[in-house]
Amino acid sequence: MSELNLEALAARLKKFADARDWEKFHTPKNLAMALSVEVSELAEIFQWMTAEESSTVMTDEKLADAVRDELADITLYLVRLSAILKVDLLAEASAKIDRNEKRFPPIG
Amino acid sequence: MSELNLEALAARLKKFADARDWEKFHTPKNLAMALSVEVSELAEIFQWMTAEESSTVMTDEKLADAVRDELADITLYLVRLSAILKVDLLAEASAKIDRNEKRFPPIG
Amino acid sequence: MSELNLEALAARLKKFADARDWEKFHTPKNLAMALSVEVSELAEIFQWMTAEESSTVMTDEKLADAVRDELADITLYLVRLSAILKVDLLAEASAKIDRNEKRFPPIG
Amino acid sequence: MSELNLEALAARLKKFADARDWEKFHTPKNLAMALSVEVSELAEIFQWMTAEESSTVMTDEKLADAVRDELADITLYLVRLSAILKVDLLAEASAKIDRNEKRFPPIG
Repeated sequence: MSELNLEALAARLKKFADARDWEKFHTPKNLAMALSVEVSELAEIFQWMTAEESSTVMTDEKLADAVRDELADITLYLVRLSAILKVDLLAEASAKIDRNEKRFPPIG
Repeated sequence: MSELNLEALAARLKKFADARDWEKFHTPKNLAMALSVEVSELAEIFQWMTAEESSTVMTDEKLADAVRDELADITLYLVRLSAILKVDLLAEASAKIDRNEKRFPPIG
Repeated sequence: MSELNLEALAARLKKFADARDWEKFHTPKNLAMALSVEVSELAEIFQWMTAEESSTVMTDEKLADAVRDELADITLYLVRLSAILKVDLLAEASAKIDRNEKRFPPIG
Repeated sequence: MSELNLEALAARLKKFADARDWEKFHTPKNLAMALSVEVSELAEIFQWMTAEESSTVMTDEKLADAVRDELADITLYLVRLSAILKVDLLAEASAKIDRNEKRFPPIG
C-alpha cells in the first residue's frame, strides 16, 4: 500500500508528465498560471453565494463534488510547481505561521 | 520535535484563527478569494519573465525568497480552506491523478 | 443606430440586471470575484502557449472566437462594477497614464 | 481638450510602451497574466469584507482611492491587450449583451 503524502504525489506527477512528454510545458511561469486558473474555477463556485451559503456548500452533493475536484486540481499544480522549484511546502508553510504568530499577536 | 504534515498545519491554523477571533472571516467564499489573491502574488513574480527566466528563478536569492514566501501563503490558505470544508487534500489529489491517468493515456 | 460607448454599455447592463432581479448579486465584492474568474478564463487560453504562440492566437479562428468572447465578458463585468462604484474608467485610466509617465521616464 | 476614449487610450499606451522598449514584454500571454494580477489586487480590497461593507467601500476615502487606482490599472491592461489582439472591446461587449439577452430571458 502506498503512503499518501506530498512527496509521493510529487513523484507520481513527475512520472505522469514524463510519460506524456509534458515536462516542456511545466515551466514555473506556466504552472503558476495554471494554478491561478484552477483557483479561479474554485472561486467561481462561490462567486454569487452569500457568506452563509458558502458555509454550507458541502451539504449539496453536486457542489461538494465540484469543490473536491477543484481542490484536487489546485493541490496537484501546487505540488508539481513546488517540486520543480525544489521548495518544501510544509517547511515553508510552518515557518510562515511562526512569522505570522509574531506579526499578529493574539487578542485578549 | 514536531511532525510536519497537513493535519498538523491545519490544527495550528485553527488555533491561530481562534486566538485572534478571525474564524468569522474564514468563510469558504472569503478563503477562496484570499487563495486566489495569494496565487496572483506568485504569478506576479513570473509575469514579465520568459519561460527560461522563470526556470532559473531560484538562482536569484531575493526572488527565491519571494517565491518561497508566496508558496507558503498559498499552502496555508489551501490547508485552512480544506479543513473548513472537511476535504482531505491528499486523498482527493491522489484520486484525481488516478482519473487523469485514464483520461490522458501516455504516449508511445 | 445606437452609439457605442462605456456609458451606453453600463446603462444596458443596469437594465439587464434589473429585468432579471440580479441587482442583489451585484455587490462590488461579487463583481470583483466574477471579473477575476473571467480574466482567468482568458488566461487559460494562453497558459500552455509559448510567447510566440500567444502572439499569433488570432490566426486560429476558434481560438480567436474564444479570446473575443472572454474579452467581452471581462469588459461587461468591468463596466458593471465601475458603474456600481461610480468610477469613471476612462478618466481614471488617463490619469494613471499621466502618473506612469512621470514614474517611468522613457529611455534614451 | 483631449477626447477621452478607448482608442485614444490605446494609442497613448502604444506610445508609452514604444518609448520604453517594453513592446517585447507585451505578448498576449504576459498581458493576460498582468491583467489577472491587477484584478486580484482589486479583489484583495474586498476579500475580508461582508457584502454590505463592499457596497459602501467608496465612502472611505483611502479605500476609494485604492479602488480607483486598481480599476485604472485593469482598464489600461485590458485596453493594451485588446489593441495588440486587434479586438474591438465595445463591439464585442455589445454583441455579448445581445447574446445574453437571448440566453437569459427576463423574469416576470
